[in-house]
Amino acid sequence: MPNTEFRGIIAYPVTPFKGNGETVDTETLRRLIDQLIDNGAHAIAPLGSTGESAYLTEAEWEEVAEVAIKQVNQRVPTIIGISELTTQSAVRRAKFAEQVGANAIMVLPISYWKLSELEVFQHYAAIAEAIGIPMMVYNNPATSGIDLSPELIARMVKEIDNLTMVKESSGDIQRMHRLYELSEGTIPFYNGSNPLALEAFVAGASGWCTAAPNLIPELTISLYESTSKGNLFDAQQIFYQQLPLLKFILKGGLPTTIKAGLKLLGIDAGVPRPPLMALDAIGIGQLSELLTRLGKGQLVTSGR
Amino acid sequence: MPNTEFRGIIAYPVTPFKGNGETVDTETLRRLIDQLIDNGAHAIAPLGSTGESAYLTEAEWEEVAEVAIKQVNQRVPTIIGISELTTQSAVRRAKFAEQVGANAIMVLPISYWKLSELEVFQHYAAIAEAIGIPMMVYNNPATSGIDLSPELIARMVKEIDNLTMVKESSGDIQRMHRLYELSEGTIPFYNGSNPLALEAFVAGASGWCTAAPNLIPELTISLYESTSKGNLFDAQQIFYQQLPLLKFILKGGLPTTIKAGLKLLGIDAGVPRPPLMALDAIGIGQLSELLTRLGKGQLVTSGR
Amino acid sequence: MPNTEFRGIIAYPVTPFKGNGETVDTETLRRLIDQLIDNGAHAIAPLGSTGESAYLTEAEWEEVAEVAIKQVNQRVPTIIGISELTTQSAVRRAKFAEQVGANAIMVLPISYWKLSELEVFQHYAAIAEAIGIPMMVYNNPATSGIDLSPELIARMVKEIDNLTMVKESSGDIQRMHRLYELSEGTIPFYNGSNPLALEAFVAGASGWCTAAPNLIPELTISLYESTSKGNLFDAQQIFYQQLPLLKFILKGGLPTTIKAGLKLLGIDAGVPRPPLMALDAIGIGQLSELLTRLGKGQLVTSGR
Amino acid sequence: MPNTEFRGIIAYPVTPFKGNGETVDTETLRRLIDQLIDNGAHAIAPLGSTGESAYLTEAEWEEVAEVAIKQVNQRVPTIIGISELTTQSAVRRAKFAEQVGANAIMVLPISYWKLSELEVFQHYAAIAEAIGIPMMVYNNPATSGIDLSPELIARMVKEIDNLTMVKESSGDIQRMHRLYELSEGTIPFYNGSNPLALEAFVAGASGWCTAAPNLIPELTISLYESTSKGNLFDAQQIFYQQLPLLKFILKGGLPTTIKAGLKLLGIDAGVPRPPLMALDAIGIGQLSELLTRLGKGQLVTSGR
Repeated sequence: MPNTEFRGIIAYPVTPFKGNGETVDTETLRRLIDQLIDNGAHAIAPLGSTGESAYLTEAEWEEVAEVAIKQVNQRVPTIIGISELTTQSAVRRAKFAEQVGANAIMVLPISYWKLSELEVFQHYAAIAEAIGIPMMVYNNPATSGIDLSPELIARMVKEIDNLTMVKESSGDIQRMHRLYELSEGTIPFYNGSNPLALEAFVAGASGWCTAAPNLIPELTISLYESTSKGNLFDAQQIFYQQLPLLKFILKGGLPTTIKAGLKLLGIDAGVPRPPLMALDAIGIGQLSELLTRLGKGQLVTSGR
Repeated sequence: MPNTEFRGIIAYPVTPFKGNGETVDTETLRRLIDQLIDNGAHAIAPLGSTGESAYLTEAEWEEVAEVAIKQVNQRVPTIIGISELTTQSAVRRAKFAEQVGANAIMVLPISYWKLSELEVFQHYAAIAEAIGIPMMVYNNPATSGIDLSPELIARMVKEIDNLTMVKESSGDIQRMHRLYELSEGTIPFYNGSNPLALEAFVAGASGWCTAAPNLIPELTISLYESTSKGNLFDAQQIFYQQLPLLKFILKGGLPTTIKAGLKLLGIDAGVPRPPLMALDAIGIGQLSELLTRLGKGQLVTSGR
Repeated sequence: MPNTEFRGIIAYPVTPFKGNGETVDTETLRRLIDQLIDNGAHAIAPLGSTGESAYLTEAEWEEVAEVAIKQVNQRVPTIIGISELTTQSAVRRAKFAEQVGANAIMVLPISYWKLSELEVFQHYAAIAEAIGIPMMVYNNPATSGIDLSPELIARMVKEIDNLTMVKESSGDIQRMHRLYELSEGTIPFYNGSNPLALEAFVAGASGWCTAAPNLIPELTISLYESTSKGNLFDAQQIFYQQLPLLKFILKGGLPTTIKAGLKLLGIDAGVPRPPLMALDAIGIGQLSELLTRLGKGQLVTSGR
Repeated sequence: MPNTEFRGIIAYPVTPFKGNGETVDTETLRRLIDQLIDNGAHAIAPLGSTGESAYLTEAEWEEVAEVAIKQVNQRVPTIIGISELTTQSAVRRAKFAEQVGANAIMVLPISYWKLSELEVFQHYAAIAEAIGIPMMVYNNPATSGIDLSPELIARMVKEIDNLTMVKESSGDIQRMHRLYELSEGTIPFYNGSNPLALEAFVAGASGWCTAAPNLIPELTISLYESTSKGNLFDAQQIFYQQLPLLKFILKGGLPTTIKAGLKLLGIDAGVPRPPLMALDAIGIGQLSELLTRLGKGQLVTSGR
């Protein structure tokens, strides 16, 4: 049995597609997962925002969950992402994830009509009740359209049994301060905003949920290790080194930029699913330059 | 063949559910549609935001589309709402809508990852190419997370053949001014923000897309008629009369408040689908008072 | 004694400067005021945002107030603008305005540190207590940095004796609806957002506070008259005719664009005070074209 | 001659008033400055936001500048704050500050009408040209109403000779990252947002501009020292200890809360100038508790 405590670099693989985003390429997914683990990721998180979770059909989502968990094979913990509009659909997927062996799930409360705090609470409570594995609440107002306050999050962690972790992607360091204060440092929180990686660790984050290890695994691991040792000067230097890339991959949309970067590094994970489009030529040029500067010399550039 | 020009009051029925939002109640849906037409609606728009379109499974969505179109039976035009994250799914539903007899479709570009203007354009172009009926582009940043500029909208109307109408729900009257200017008044635009109903007609809107006719059909028709005649004083008086209700139903979420209002008026359309919750007791009391003040005396209040 | 009820077009003269915005040009100010009155303005409001009130020294402000009031000479009412950070300074200027014959004052609550509702209330109460003439509360969050809610405004109008009028420049028509509702239409409110001129009258505004009469007096008067008669179609046509100009003068900053426009029309009111700069050549070209399209044929273009 | 490099804790004294904020209390100002220096402040910054600079008359401002500089007497560097709406007034004060011995000035570009980048640039250039001492550009959109982009700031630092330092009070850590990137770490930037104190140092800030030393000098010095040594764990612990107080003093408005805190600690610096009000009883209770928890046991609570 693996260590089920999540700590360090939680790596988010993309969901590779064939054709113009039409079908899932499980072969490449398996290869990506192996590579992330080989490069030191402390946990694997398929079906996150990076994994285009919300863009998959239910059958595709189930296939990716199952394939990924089998491939990880408990070498590190696996956390499966769920982003469903209705409670019944979120419950169904949570049960499926548990059944096929996930160590935890991460749940984003997508909204169409704005949700009250009570509606959010009941959504999480219903999912938690249906499963026996830990759940991470995921706050990402930019993609979900709903912003969970630290106060609501802390209350949910306290009152909902297996809701035990928090992923904060709002990019606001004050949210992390507030979570720390509200729980006197006892609620494990994880940073999901790449350009905040340094400061989040400094503020006490247990881990960094990131797609960057698909492209620059060593730098993400080094940042974690230097902050783990309390070595501020090293951490600062390592962070500023990778910051331009972290900003680039976020700004262009993670599925778009990570898939383009993987192709530059020799792995064809296809393009994102429409209406999302592949990175354009200018973007590919910029990304190539950023990777080269970080010593990613083995770039595949022929044939473009 | 019906008049396919959309003008006046475009009425949005809720999608009635049985149980705790579990299954669609097509019987009540048919009754609601008849009532909307009998009360003077100039068009019917099932599967909009009010119709919880985004919360339905694909099979449910198809059932509602088909049942609704048959029930309208060309007495007035029917416009079917589509809110899909992926282009392939939006195309599939657009084709289905045309096939079962829709007079037009209304398409909201839901986003998870932010879309570029090119991505939005291609999304609409792909849908338009798949069908032969008119399409209405629907801008509603508060629910969709994506804000279409008047400039982009005007360009799409010009360059995409059957994209012929615009629904603006941003609640910003300056958007309507801009659309008017960009097309010298030739692009038909429709207002989807209830508290802006008066000013939108004054600014030149061709119609009002609204769920209010489920509860107060006469007042919505009267507002349209007074502005059609250019009678400003009447329009102002009629608008301020209904404004408190219009604000209330929007603020509480249209599926939630309209379903509660229907129950007060004797029609059981069930509750919204979780995580959305039914209107609470305080809200029901406020809504009841607002309806009573508008002469909706036959309120059903027993048994709550 | 003049009609002290403010209704219709309240015209805002710029404060003309000599040199590079160094000293006030009272001669041209007098000429501008005469022209505004001759062209039909229903009231004159010196020292507003357009009049660069906040940019003047106390001595300059007093000179402009005194000169303007004398020049108007009770042909129409005069309302003097006050935008001071401290209560003591606002009180001093309010007393001065009354003493030199103002019919009313208009007060904007400039903020540096955010003000609580109590602080805002006491600011207005202290000013009101110091004078015997009516006061207009002025809400303009974009320039003042403080946003007064309709609820606070309605309460101040109710509880502070000579606070009797409201100028709303937030550009949000829902604020006007709310003021109307809160007072059942009894609080006179005035629109200070040029691109909202049509809809504000439609929503019940008593007047339009605007710098546009410096350039296009006839069109502003016509819009007021058509809405006064309840003639919606005329109003719409007259509004859309002038809208491009209204948007242009607002977007470029009223002192900047109005001074440039006056020069095009043959009146040299100088440039705004630094750091504000004169309109650049591209802007002058656009403004000239907008004015020409509105029949302002006598444009002075030589010598630029 | 003092060390004119600004580094570490730059302490902002309040401007003490007598009566209800009516006149400046220079006696208490001198005492405050001595105390700040005795407690280890690395520089003194009178007439900042905390010093109610914008609320003073020109004569008062000059008096405070002169008294403060004399009192500091070059024991540490003094930086004088300027927040003027017009360029001519800012220039006048800058010259005065230099003349009475300031080591540097800090300039906030207050706006009423929004300023273009060119207008901002010329404002700073005109001030710089008038003096021979270094200038710090101060970005604080919440109080000034104008937000200076890192790109504009970096360009000004490059092109305007004695503009050599940047104070960032937007509270956005990404701004500091961007400044670092744009200058490869060569532009000295200072953090003006108290709740960001830890992360700003971590991101490379040269100093912390703060009013907190009026109340908790030791903790602010300790935070600076631990980060200077690169000791992350100490810094984190010291930061979280003082964070509740840092948040409290910011949220309530620095002049208001610092003056209340000084009174609790036995120094009567009066109340802020109206419309600003003194901290209310509930706030005083909360502040007292926060100070007590930090070992400020000698609180004066009698007589309230």
